Amino acid sequence: MFSQTVEYALRAIVLLAGDPDQPRTSEQIAKVTQVPHAYLSKVMKGLCDAGLVRSQRGIHGGFTILKRAHELTILEVVNAVEPIRRIRTCPLGISTHGMRLCPLHRRLDDALASVEKAFGDTTLAEVLADPNPSIPLCEFPPIRELTPGTTPPAAT
Amino acid sequence: MFSQTVEYALRAIVLLAGDPDQPRTSEQIAKVTQVPHAYLSKVMKGLCDAGLVRSQRGIHGGFTILKRAHELTILEVVNAVEPIRRIRTCPLGISTHGMRLCPLHRRLDDALASVEKAFGDTTLAEVLADPNPSIPLCEFPPIRELTPGTTPPAAT
Repeated sequence: MFSQTVEYALRAIVLLAGDPDQPRTSEQIAKVTQVPHAYLSKVMKGLCDAGLVRSQRGIHGGFTILKRAHELTILEVVNAVEPIRRIRTCPLGISTHGMRLCPLHRRLDDALASVEKAFGDTTLAEVLADPNPSIPLCEFPPIRELTPGTTPPAAT
Repeated sequence: MFSQTVEYALRAIVLLAGDPDQPRTSEQIAKVTQVPHAYLSKVMKGLCDAGLVRSQRGIHGGFTILKRAHELTILEVVNAVEPIRRIRTCPLGISTHGMRLCPLHRRLDDALASVEKAFGDTTLAEVLADPNPSIPLCEFPPIRELTPGTTPPAAT
C-alpha cells in the first residue's frame, strides 16, 4: 500500500534527521538506506523540491535536512514524494453524488484519513526517540560511524 | 494510496453484490463502473481467481458473485487483487531487528494494520445498506435498470 518511493524517502530522511548538521553524500545515503543510486536520486529530488532537504555541491557538500526532527512529520515526508490523495468528490463523476461520497468511497476516504492523521501526528523526533531496541536503519546504534573521526558507541 | 486496480475491483464487486443472482456481462460492468474494458478483464480475473466471482459463458452468462454481501468484506476484495502487505520483518534485512521492527517500520505497519482492520470489519452488505443518500455507482438508485424487464424505481 505504501510505495517503494515512500519507503525510500522515509529511510533517507531518518538518516539525515539523526544527525541534522552533518551533510551526507548520495553514496553514504545509498549505502545506509540500501536504496539503489538511480532511485535515490529521484527520491532526494522530491525531498529537495518539497523544501525538506537541501543539496550542496563541493568537497564538504551533500544533503542536509532543513527542518528539525521535532518539526517534521512522517506525513510531510510522504506527501513530499507521493501525496496521500484523499477522495473529495465522487471518482465516477456522478453528479448527484458530488462531494457527498457514496458509502464505498466514504469508507475508502475514512481509511486514507486515518493514515493521514497517524502520520501527521508522528514527528521524526518521536520515531528517533522511540525506546525501541531496534534503531532505524542500523544494525547497532550508530549512524555516526559514517562521519570520519567519530567512533560508534558500543552496541548495548 | 489505493491503486486503480483496488478501486475498480470494489466498483465491480459492489455492482455484483447489489443483485447477486443476476449475472452481468463485462460490457454491463464496464458501463456502470466506468472501467476500461481491458483493465476490467484483468480485475475480474483477479476476483475469479480468488473465488469471489464466477464467470459463465453463454447467452445468459456473465459474472456472478459467489458470496453474499454480508459474508464478504472490503478487505477480501482488496486482498483478491492487491493484497495489503503488512511489514513482518525489517525491510532492510537488518539481522538484529528481525521481527522486532524499528520505530519507523512499526509506525508504517501500524497504519497498514488500521486499514486492514477497518476494511476487515466492513462487509459489502454494510456498504450497500448505508443510509447515505448517494448510492454506490448510481446517479439514481437503480442498478436494476440493466436487467431487461425491470423498471428502475423513481429517484427520491
